[in-house]
Amino acid sequence: MSKKKLNVGIIGYGFMGRTHSNAFRTVNNFFDLEYEPVLKAVCARDGGKAKAFAEQWGYESVETDWKKLIARKDIDLIDIASPNNTHARIAEAAAAAGKMILCEKPLAMNGPQAEAMVKAVEKAKAPNMVWYNYRRVPAVTLAKQLIDEGRLGRIFHYRAKFLQDWTISKDLPQGGAGLWRLDAKVAGSGVTGDLLAHCIDTSLWLNGPIDKVTAMTETFVKERKHNLSGKVEKVSIDDASAFLARFSNGSLATFESTRYARGHKALYTFEINGEHASIFWDLHDLHRLQYFDHRDEGLTRGWRSLHITDSDHPYMKHWWVPGLQIGYEHTFVHQVADFLAGLSTGKPVSPTFREALETQKICDAVLASAKSGQWTNVG
Amino acid sequence: MSKKKLNVGIIGYGFMGRTHSNAFRTVNNFFDLEYEPVLKAVCARDGGKAKAFAEQWGYESVETDWKKLIARKDIDLIDIASPNNTHARIAEAAAAAGKMILCEKPLAMNGPQAEAMVKAVEKAKAPNMVWYNYRRVPAVTLAKQLIDEGRLGRIFHYRAKFLQDWTISKDLPQGGAGLWRLDAKVAGSGVTGDLLAHCIDTSLWLNGPIDKVTAMTETFVKERKHNLSGKVEKVSIDDASAFLARFSNGSLATFESTRYARGHKALYTFEINGEHASIFWDLHDLHRLQYFDHRDEGLTRGWRSLHITDSDHPYMKHWWVPGLQIGYEHTFVHQVADFLAGLSTGKPVSPTFREALETQKICDAVLASAKSGQWTNVG
Amino acid sequence: MSKKKLNVGIIGYGFMGRTHSNAFRTVNNFFDLEYEPVLKAVCARDGGKAKAFAEQWGYESVETDWKKLIARKDIDLIDIASPNNTHARIAEAAAAAGKMILCEKPLAMNGPQAEAMVKAVEKAKAPNMVWYNYRRVPAVTLAKQLIDEGRLGRIFHYRAKFLQDWTISKDLPQGGAGLWRLDAKVAGSGVTGDLLAHCIDTSLWLNGPIDKVTAMTETFVKERKHNLSGKVEKVSIDDASAFLARFSNGSLATFESTRYARGHKALYTFEINGEHASIFWDLHDLHRLQYFDHRDEGLTRGWRSLHITDSDHPYMKHWWVPGLQIGYEHTFVHQVADFLAGLSTGKPVSPTFREALETQKICDAVLASAKSGQWTNVG
Amino acid sequence: MSKKKLNVGIIGYGFMGRTHSNAFRTVNNFFDLEYEPVLKAVCARDGGKAKAFAEQWGYESVETDWKKLIARKDIDLIDIASPNNTHARIAEAAAAAGKMILCEKPLAMNGPQAEAMVKAVEKAKAPNMVWYNYRRVPAVTLAKQLIDEGRLGRIFHYRAKFLQDWTISKDLPQGGAGLWRLDAKVAGSGVTGDLLAHCIDTSLWLNGPIDKVTAMTETFVKERKHNLSGKVEKVSIDDASAFLARFSNGSLATFESTRYARGHKALYTFEINGEHASIFWDLHDLHRLQYFDHRDEGLTRGWRSLHITDSDHPYMKHWWVPGLQIGYEHTFVHQVADFLAGLSTGKPVSPTFREALETQKICDAVLASAKSGQWTNVG
Repeated sequence: MSKKKLNVGIIGYGFMGRTHSNAFRTVNNFFDLEYEPVLKAVCARDGGKAKAFAEQWGYESVETDWKKLIARKDIDLIDIASPNNTHARIAEAAAAAGKMILCEKPLAMNGPQAEAMVKAVEKAKAPNMVWYNYRRVPAVTLAKQLIDEGRLGRIFHYRAKFLQDWTISKDLPQGGAGLWRLDAKVAGSGVTGDLLAHCIDTSLWLNGPIDKVTAMTETFVKERKHNLSGKVEKVSIDDASAFLARFSNGSLATFESTRYARGHKALYTFEINGEHASIFWDLHDLHRLQYFDHRDEGLTRGWRSLHITDSDHPYMKHWWVPGLQIGYEHTFVHQVADFLAGLSTGKPVSPTFREALETQKICDAVLASAKSGQWTNVG
Repeated sequence: MSKKKLNVGIIGYGFMGRTHSNAFRTVNNFFDLEYEPVLKAVCARDGGKAKAFAEQWGYESVETDWKKLIARKDIDLIDIASPNNTHARIAEAAAAAGKMILCEKPLAMNGPQAEAMVKAVEKAKAPNMVWYNYRRVPAVTLAKQLIDEGRLGRIFHYRAKFLQDWTISKDLPQGGAGLWRLDAKVAGSGVTGDLLAHCIDTSLWLNGPIDKVTAMTETFVKERKHNLSGKVEKVSIDDASAFLARFSNGSLATFESTRYARGHKALYTFEINGEHASIFWDLHDLHRLQYFDHRDEGLTRGWRSLHITDSDHPYMKHWWVPGLQIGYEHTFVHQVADFLAGLSTGKPVSPTFREALETQKICDAVLASAKSGQWTNVG
Repeated sequence: MSKKKLNVGIIGYGFMGRTHSNAFRTVNNFFDLEYEPVLKAVCARDGGKAKAFAEQWGYESVETDWKKLIARKDIDLIDIASPNNTHARIAEAAAAAGKMILCEKPLAMNGPQAEAMVKAVEKAKAPNMVWYNYRRVPAVTLAKQLIDEGRLGRIFHYRAKFLQDWTISKDLPQGGAGLWRLDAKVAGSGVTGDLLAHCIDTSLWLNGPIDKVTAMTETFVKERKHNLSGKVEKVSIDDASAFLARFSNGSLATFESTRYARGHKALYTFEINGEHASIFWDLHDLHRLQYFDHRDEGLTRGWRSLHITDSDHPYMKHWWVPGLQIGYEHTFVHQVADFLAGLSTGKPVSPTFREALETQKICDAVLASAKSGQWTNVG
Repeated sequence: MSKKKLNVGIIGYGFMGRTHSNAFRTVNNFFDLEYEPVLKAVCARDGGKAKAFAEQWGYESVETDWKKLIARKDIDLIDIASPNNTHARIAEAAAAAGKMILCEKPLAMNGPQAEAMVKAVEKAKAPNMVWYNYRRVPAVTLAKQLIDEGRLGRIFHYRAKFLQDWTISKDLPQGGAGLWRLDAKVAGSGVTGDLLAHCIDTSLWLNGPIDKVTAMTETFVKERKHNLSGKVEKVSIDDASAFLARFSNGSLATFESTRYARGHKALYTFEINGEHASIFWDLHDLHRLQYFDHRDEGLTRGWRSLHITDSDHPYMKHWWVPGLQIGYEHTFVHQVADFLAGLSTGKPVSPTFREALETQKICDAVLASAKSGQWTNVG
């Protein structure tokens, strides 16, 4: 049965360029889908690097100007994997040109910018999606399923953390190239947009809207050398960001992210405590879900460590056999698979730009609260 | 070598009456000390229960009026293990009578009351101590030692939780007898004074003073039947309490306690992230300390699970052999051992009433902030 | 209600002297029993050490000749906590003198000696018990309960290990005093009798009789200096011992013990796999039981980590509140509590000398098989 | 830079056909190599299934007779992913035809057959390799590196297990199609060749040769219905297999595998205890390595949990960033990467047919010992 080809033009060749490319390239080996992505073009300002990337991944062509890419008739889908400050312009132009759009997270530099992007894609009726990939970790998807089935009952608590330790050294430079995440002009914010945004996106999906927050942020290292200019400059981003929140469903939450938690590489964890059951997940062991059900008989009640590798676990029938785990990159494959399936059904695939806008608004509220010291309503 | 006898009069026969009595009764079997506690008298309003307790534990006599107990010449030390709203009166009277005083935590109903108690014992020069027992978990004491040796370097983050789940059922009554912890008139507050106070005490010991906090509290179940009267009454305590804090040393903190975290019986955990090293501890596996040292060679760097049962670990040479763990009650034995050793040296033993006052002030700030919605300076 | 006094005479003041004394001394604080042990006398050849021990623990008197102790009319119970090569003589004499007898494990130097001891106590109708204390870890007792309820179904596999690492250094001496466990003339064997005996005792209790074994043993360090004489002598004990076994119920087993497993202090673990459910336990976290039940719904099936601190868990209603763990020494308290309760009912309390004889026979078979290289039938 | 094409012809489209195909198809995206595999042909008796597989994975052509595949001039490499009883014929023919050969494990039905295969490939000087993929789990490769650096010192103990639970149900049929692993005529043996072979291969790599073994095997369910004929027939395979072993380096070992260990899906674990350090690994959390180093300072000595996701860990610089784990299939990618790199250097890549022969001999000794009840020398 021959597939419908979907011509992909990707912008950016960095870390996310690799995860997306791998997903486009392998999804049809593991999922039976009507559509098949074709790696048509990669676009980057540095033509040499774009060419090398194209060779590595099998892209058919190279562009150095994203406007030209968007103008190409043979491109169906624009995938934005470039720094945050470029998302809005590209997405709006791509929408206007009638392309489907996938966009790296966070969607935008801030809420208003995100709002405009939502308007653009909705006006264009462009299929769109944001790469909040952690929703598609099978264990996280299973958490969603258990919650939706009502197993947890009334929710009392949500807590999420995203802890890293890679910027502790004072000798680490900031600036251009691979370090744009340390530059607020390019990234929008520090850990709030980079790490907390993931935690927030998952929480909205699992636990519904957040009403208000009170936050604090901190920049531990105040000045760093720029990696290109060599000049010592003020650090513009938040190194750490934590907030208390109240969800609309009445539950209380704590959120925290930092790049100064020694010993943690990418420790995204969340826990949700309900009347009947609780769930815990941890990115460092992403193939496991911890589940406690109070309805178990008392004598043998305890936290269950679920090894999410069975064929009835979300997405897992597409992979190997029970006991054999998958890893990080597979979340992107799942997201592409769902997006392609959505093209067949015509239904939007989550998280859309509109859903990602909600996360952006909460990030804005967090940053505003950290400045004002006040509880701040969302949106 | 014969010991100096120290005659103990204890007030209260509840859960804490048992832990203290066990500590007094066994400390000299395991520690070589100049002093030896003698279980002289137990005092409780219910004479029958007091008598039964005396028989169970070997107390020589029984009182039903704490004033009489304090008036007895053969009592050297008053141990307060009665509900929170009785601490101040008893302690002040005992100090005036020239007794040594041990007091259960939290020290008082609030800061001003605690302040008066501090004045009383300091004026009387009475040896005094508050039963924040978790400082004497060997793993926690080792954490203190590692921090004091400077191994963690500059501290960036502190996070503590104390999670329980025993009040989730709406059918649980509140009120008198064993349930006074659910009555704010007796307990002072809910989880803030009962659970967070432990977290705060440990944090002050490990990480120094807290400058300011912003907090939220919640009462999930608004009304409960009184266990004696049978009347449905408004719930007066906080079921959950969480706050963000800034320590004087520049580190950021999150604290949370609740009795609505399904799956957790008494999950007190703390983690502290420093420039060089991090520490994690968990009451549910209290004999372990998790330690990460970034100065380890990269290839084999990881979180170390220390089994705190070696003779060079704090307190452990007094117990068994490596690999054989001790439990909860031993923390009280350690605290008595240290108190008795302090009598020999004449040095105050931590935490004194003055140190516990600091915790009380922070609890007050937390409750005030939860009401006002504002960042609140401590004391 | 006044208790019946039970006068205890203990022989030995070493590590086991301490664990037993603590059990006798505290059991009535936590358990309501008709009988109350009285620490009447401690006996040891070194009168000075015996006296110091008596003072530390509150023994009323001291003996230096165990025959005199046995001859005393005011002694009801002889507790044998002296080296293995003394057990038989003492137990036989005590039985003849009409005493109750508790004996440290392993019961004897070998099967025939143990057989004679069994005859002696049974002829005398003396209440008797062997200190295989690990049966009374609440988690282990719960395992027994779950198995007896038939929850595991047909048993396929049993595996047990007892791993230590304290004799790896070649500089460790062997010989007298605290090191008699390294001398086969005093200990009977090395890890087979010291460590494997524990594993075997538990397995017989949980899984029934063993039919046959094939074993290997090894002495890694062939010569050591004697700690008293200073002479270098051949090492007489087995440093490591492992065997395959077939249980009468058709299940297969692997057993292993060693003092050369770097990183393990006293890692006694067992796992039992049944048709429906499996159980795992680990002495290093003795307050937990791992339980897997295949009858759980597939989607949320996983190993459950049971925190054995609830009041419906074996023995735990006598201690603290959920979440607060007990430790190693409590197993001895439980064993005394059961023994005392058995005196009231008149029923033998497990493990009796007769049950411990079975373990001795298996140890003999293991050592014989290690020598012959053949599968060896038990007893 | 254009790559040298390596035309692959694969035989078999089952589970292993998928893992190999994925490896061939993605290796060049992540590794910079001179060679590039081309998915030239898939061969299977069932032409329809072969065609579907070719479409799924992008194979250019289909064969239904492996002799024709081997005869094709445009095929450089024959990859054998068909049942065990076909390996020898195919490999010998492929070697005679001058092809490179990759072969699934176990190499053969038994030692003599494997021996003939070794002769064939060595005579033909055919590059050859066997898919013992677990050597290339980064954590396992790191274990090898740490051992080769001498960090563990003298080795005392090796223990390995491979536990599954998928054949416990008596209703599971045996026989053809996907169930050939339950038929000794096709598989050679049961868990010995399927699971223990993995444990043995790793152990030989990490700990050197095994001298002798004593073993037991069991078939718990004696009869099963054939899935095609419907007839109830005797079960021919071993359901469980365990053995004791002595390595040439003087260390003792226990090995066990079963498909009757309730709760374990594919729990391959090994532990190795050395004089100075110990290592533990577990397939269910394959991205972690547990490491204990006695040379660490005593106070903070403990088992380290290494999260094998850093760029200096084996293979990991080719994947994502620290903290983000890879999974099962990547082991095959690594093995292809190493094989292709070996073509460039001309050096054999481990494990070769000759190395896999050693594993076969040990499997033979295990099965022989289980029958005879005697210690059996290897090979």
